Amino acid sequence: MEIIKTIKQMQSYSREQQRLGKTIGLVPTMGYLHEGHIELVKAARKENDIVIVSIFVNPIQFGVGEDFDIYPRDLKRDSQLLEKENVDVIFNPEGEEMYPAGYNTFVEVSGEITTKLCGASRPGHFRGVTTVVSKLFNTCLPDKAYFGQKDAQQVMVIEKMVKELNFPLTIVRVPIIREKDGLAMSSRNTYLSDELRKEALLLNQSLIKGKQAIENGEKDVEKVKKLIQDYIKTSPNANIDYVEILSGEDLSDLSDLSELKGKILIALAVKFGNTRLIDNQLVEV
Amino acid sequence: MEIIKTIKQMQSYSREQQRLGKTIGLVPTMGYLHEGHIELVKAARKENDIVIVSIFVNPIQFGVGEDFDIYPRDLKRDSQLLEKENVDVIFNPEGEEMYPAGYNTFVEVSGEITTKLCGASRPGHFRGVTTVVSKLFNTCLPDKAYFGQKDAQQVMVIEKMVKELNFPLTIVRVPIIREKDGLAMSSRNTYLSDELRKEALLLNQSLIKGKQAIENGEKDVEKVKKLIQDYIKTSPNANIDYVEILSGEDLSDLSDLSELKGKILIALAVKFGNTRLIDNQLVEV
Repeated sequence: MEIIKTIKQMQSYSREQQRLGKTIGLVPTMGYLHEGHIELVKAARKENDIVIVSIFVNPIQFGVGEDFDIYPRDLKRDSQLLEKENVDVIFNPEGEEMYPAGYNTFVEVSGEITTKLCGASRPGHFRGVTTVVSKLFNTCLPDKAYFGQKDAQQVMVIEKMVKELNFPLTIVRVPIIREKDGLAMSSRNTYLSDELRKEALLLNQSLIKGKQAIENGEKDVEKVKKLIQDYIKTSPNANIDYVEILSGEDLSDLSDLSELKGKILIALAVKFGNTRLIDNQLVEV
Repeated sequence: MEIIKTIKQMQSYSREQQRLGKTIGLVPTMGYLHEGHIELVKAARKENDIVIVSIFVNPIQFGVGEDFDIYPRDLKRDSQLLEKENVDVIFNPEGEEMYPAGYNTFVEVSGEITTKLCGASRPGHFRGVTTVVSKLFNTCLPDKAYFGQKDAQQVMVIEKMVKELNFPLTIVRVPIIREKDGLAMSSRNTYLSDELRKEALLLNQSLIKGKQAIENGEKDVEKVKKLIQDYIKTSPNANIDYVEILSGEDLSDLSDLSELKGKILIALAVKFGNTRLIDNQLVEV
């Protein structure tokens, strides 16, 4: 396994693989890997000749006062994990390599898809994501790129970007991986005290309650939202950012579920102390 | 020579050429080709195995009230010209193919480089250009893409975008091609009456006067600008949009030329009736 630090080297590596007729799978990450990431890597390993994992804590997707500085980093541990998964290359550029002085080019998906949910509480976040992902695509030249369903809105935004800018690649969605007790895997779980970690189990539990209500025939979106919110509010430290029930196709609003066919996304973001966690469930109707 | 109308077909053609180890040169145009375009095509033909010319009048780079609807189009004549130059493919998508309903993804280079000169009088223009060029790059997958120095600011913006988004390709600049009487070639010259066409010769003449003044040692930018402006104002129908003298490296302001090394860009935009023409000269100091 190779660790590549510069865009130029990464690009010529990938160009060479293309010339040799090899397919490339890319798993973009911010490092501090957990089993959720490893699931993405395993999927990429199964479907491609070459697997590249990028590890880059992308400054431009963090807002002022967010956790960029304290976001957990451990390249040594990450490398050991990826070595075991037979990854070919870790692409691990420095901030200056990705955003040199005077950097000023951005890729943006406009509209509801980026202004709702996390877009509402984290302005500029998705612009940072689509910009860095475009740079990673152009640098690593993947045939397929792997993203977790945990960041449901993120993967929808990236799919829209890929389609609309005509990137020559396929996005593969990988389901959420959870701890045994149901907490969705996240590098940010490491911020939680034992007490808050216990309270955070409410997130998945509340989503399951909402999902069951819909599956049992509840058609009123507001009632399902309230059920979830009320459940979360039983936690003394939970601070709801949003609980939303939207179309799983394009994040459009749903008021009544009677007419709907296709996927419904139940998504939430809740703060426990300073730690903001997200989770979601897709419901087929 | 093949004419390809869909993104999917164009992309799989280019992918196949890549697999065969062929290099691809792309000449992005809005059609109604003149000798300036043909110069770009000849350069591409010399340096690549495969030459693709895209012909697409890009709606999103035109402002409200600009000439999108009347922009000249003649695919038949363009095809004949390109056939003679041994072009391999014309990529000629419809508007709906490039921007289907709900389209909402944009690439933008921010800062001075896009807000000065044409960016000041055509807000949103360069966002339209960088977006369509990104789409064309992802669709045609060129190793090299050819742009004319006539649109000096455009090529600088695109070079910055390519560098900052890490597109895996090289931009080649091709010098301005002029009519025998000095008028810079442009598809928009066709809008001019005989009378206005004669007056438009002032543009190149005034640029040469400015260039000579600098080469003869004039250090005061404002004096050179005034020289050019006064010369243009001798035309009864000329309406100056801008006359600017800026760094040819990054469009930064220059007040005094004494310290400067490198290239100076003298650029202008002038309206003759409803026809807005641009021209420029690079001066080495």
